[in-house]
Amino acid sequence: MKKADPGRIEKHLKELNAFNSTPECGTTRVVFTDVELKGREYVKGIMRGTGLAVKEDSIGNVFATLPGSDPSLAPVWTGSHIDTVLCGGMFDGMAGVFGGIEALRLIRESGIKHKRDISAVVYTSEEPTRFQVSCLGSRAMAGDLTLEDTKGISDKDGNTLYDVLCRLGYDMGRFGEIKRGPGSVYAAVELHVEQNRRLEDDGRKIGIVKAICAPTNFDVIVTGVQSHAGGTSMEARRDAYMAACELALILEKLARENTESEYTTATVGRVKVSPGSVNAIPGRCEFSVDIRDVDFESKRKLTERFLSECAAVELRRGVSVSHVMHNQDIPLRCSEEISGIIEKYVKTAGLPYEKMISGPYHDSMFVGRFAPVGMIFVPSRNGISHSPEEWTDFAEIAAGTDVLAETLAELANR
Amino acid sequence: MKKADPGRIEKHLKELNAFNSTPECGTTRVVFTDVELKGREYVKGIMRGTGLAVKEDSIGNVFATLPGSDPSLAPVWTGSHIDTVLCGGMFDGMAGVFGGIEALRLIRESGIKHKRDISAVVYTSEEPTRFQVSCLGSRAMAGDLTLEDTKGISDKDGNTLYDVLCRLGYDMGRFGEIKRGPGSVYAAVELHVEQNRRLEDDGRKIGIVKAICAPTNFDVIVTGVQSHAGGTSMEARRDAYMAACELALILEKLARENTESEYTTATVGRVKVSPGSVNAIPGRCEFSVDIRDVDFESKRKLTERFLSECAAVELRRGVSVSHVMHNQDIPLRCSEEISGIIEKYVKTAGLPYEKMISGPYHDSMFVGRFAPVGMIFVPSRNGISHSPEEWTDFAEIAAGTDVLAETLAELANR
Repeated sequence: MKKADPGRIEKHLKELNAFNSTPECGTTRVVFTDVELKGREYVKGIMRGTGLAVKEDSIGNVFATLPGSDPSLAPVWTGSHIDTVLCGGMFDGMAGVFGGIEALRLIRESGIKHKRDISAVVYTSEEPTRFQVSCLGSRAMAGDLTLEDTKGISDKDGNTLYDVLCRLGYDMGRFGEIKRGPGSVYAAVELHVEQNRRLEDDGRKIGIVKAICAPTNFDVIVTGVQSHAGGTSMEARRDAYMAACELALILEKLARENTESEYTTATVGRVKVSPGSVNAIPGRCEFSVDIRDVDFESKRKLTERFLSECAAVELRRGVSVSHVMHNQDIPLRCSEEISGIIEKYVKTAGLPYEKMISGPYHDSMFVGRFAPVGMIFVPSRNGISHSPEEWTDFAEIAAGTDVLAETLAELANR
Repeated sequence: MKKADPGRIEKHLKELNAFNSTPECGTTRVVFTDVELKGREYVKGIMRGTGLAVKEDSIGNVFATLPGSDPSLAPVWTGSHIDTVLCGGMFDGMAGVFGGIEALRLIRESGIKHKRDISAVVYTSEEPTRFQVSCLGSRAMAGDLTLEDTKGISDKDGNTLYDVLCRLGYDMGRFGEIKRGPGSVYAAVELHVEQNRRLEDDGRKIGIVKAICAPTNFDVIVTGVQSHAGGTSMEARRDAYMAACELALILEKLARENTESEYTTATVGRVKVSPGSVNAIPGRCEFSVDIRDVDFESKRKLTERFLSECAAVELRRGVSVSHVMHNQDIPLRCSEEISGIIEKYVKTAGLPYEKMISGPYHDSMFVGRFAPVGMIFVPSRNGISHSPEEWTDFAEIAAGTDVLAETLAELANR
């Protein structure tokens, strides 16, 4: 097999990175905005230039296919996403998209015969940036996002996903075709940046993912009494923000002290305090909660414990606390068979590696509902991701791409 | 003396309230915005209609004067402000402006002779809404805001106060005339809504203010490391928001447990979390701190204690914490002589009253630097202020206005 070209990967990543709505603070490419639509066209151009046939489904998942010799067999997939968080980096998702396309190029240019079709996929909106719901494309594939659901989720301007898709000309009459049944995909392998510092700390180049943590996401709304900062004594106030601070710290403590699972995190990322005046006691505070766990039961219990603490804070502080649940996703165990194939080629390449849990979720979490999946991680400098500081050396992505290409070729001949 | 007309006070308050940039959420009238400039013209019209001569100084303080028989004597003042917080109410400030004008009308229409000039004053921007600094007009009168200072403070769009004043045609060459020396004003009495529930709880109609708490205002900036919500373990994260929550709760505890003073409050009213994504650990959190105290030394110590806790949180959480001090104002004791005159007329009117500390600051706090001051409080329903829910019955404002008119007339004959 030929070797991946770090220079080509760098060129593609940097060219895609020009489609960015916040060049002053990292990369922001939000699904179905102008820059993301241009980014899609750029990626399709690269796919076509690599000699792949490009298709798109009704939610915008893009497929670039290298045909196998036996079209009756279920295909092998690789792929990731091109959308980002606000002020994020240029690697999360994109490394797996261009690594996947590069792997297909290597297989084709090396003249490797394979029975199964191999597709490089771009999944629509892995990040929940616009619609508060993550993995729109792969979630729909798993049947977890229906046509009806697309009418119920909307962006901050009130546009529903359904309306946005219609406006862009996607055929809603074919939405049912997005969903994939078990067996319809033989195997799927995703290349991704680690988004943690374990590989770097341990001096490894490749992570083989054993399991993917899944998020539970909800918003908490605290309502107190807005009043004058000087006029209202400390005893008389019912400060929504102080209650929200207490809840954030309780959440942090619950996640830190959780012993029921190998990996748990909890994050408050978005906070809105009203009215937001220096001299008014906040009457309302709304904040997002993101809980991740490799074990669903542990996550369920932690969420329950947190919500019961909300009730305690309600009583103690004379505020009212409610929540709006967005998703409670199920963690995924990766296929040991695929992980074994990845491990074989990592060893052959002589790359230092380790098996690990992925704290971040990925489209593979939903693809894993209908197909066996494997994931290959490459190092993130200082473990930083979802940040302008995000970085992975292009040579490291190329090394992961080589392993990906070998793995895909072997799977496509099974 | 004639009696104040609650109907006229109601009409004026409601008409001024039409100049409001957020009719959907209470009243917002920010200094030198379109609605505030229109509000100023409306008030000047009412002043002229009451037969008063209107003047304005170089920072927009408005004076409406009823001339006394001896122009060589220092004048007596009353007055308050017409600007508001974001989504505030229609009484805070405005009750004292129209109560003051009404008091002058009563004195004039009752044909009461007085030696000293009596002026109803509208002080510019008592609220810090636009420039983060409170009491711009009265602060400049006290010499605490110089021409040079106006070039150093700016609004969120980067306009300095100096530029705004120039653009509006105020004569910066005469800025020096704003400052008042000791003895230049004989006495000043401000009517204001209580902004607390003590009068209501105690069943009183009038509060006589013994002392005014002064604020210390600063912004705290917490810098951590922005990273991926799932990828970064609880141990590895340096979450700016969690550190900010801890600091907010420490501040609350310090204020609650402060025993060095009769009245202390501390409030976090404005909070900005960056990047503000559901799935990114906040790398930065900026929040406002407002500490009020009736005792300057107590406030100084509390501020110092809080800042040393910032250093402790810095170490404990691996974040960095800095602050930008805006003001550390000095609490004011009201004149016992003026309070005595107020008390005499409250008793004559048969109104239930009490002497109290004002948690909120007022322009009187700065006027008190160059003149003896007194303050008359009327009840706030449920103690709520800086909120759309702010309410005081017009008859209660009228009752306070009657006491104000008698007090002003007596002072103007001393």
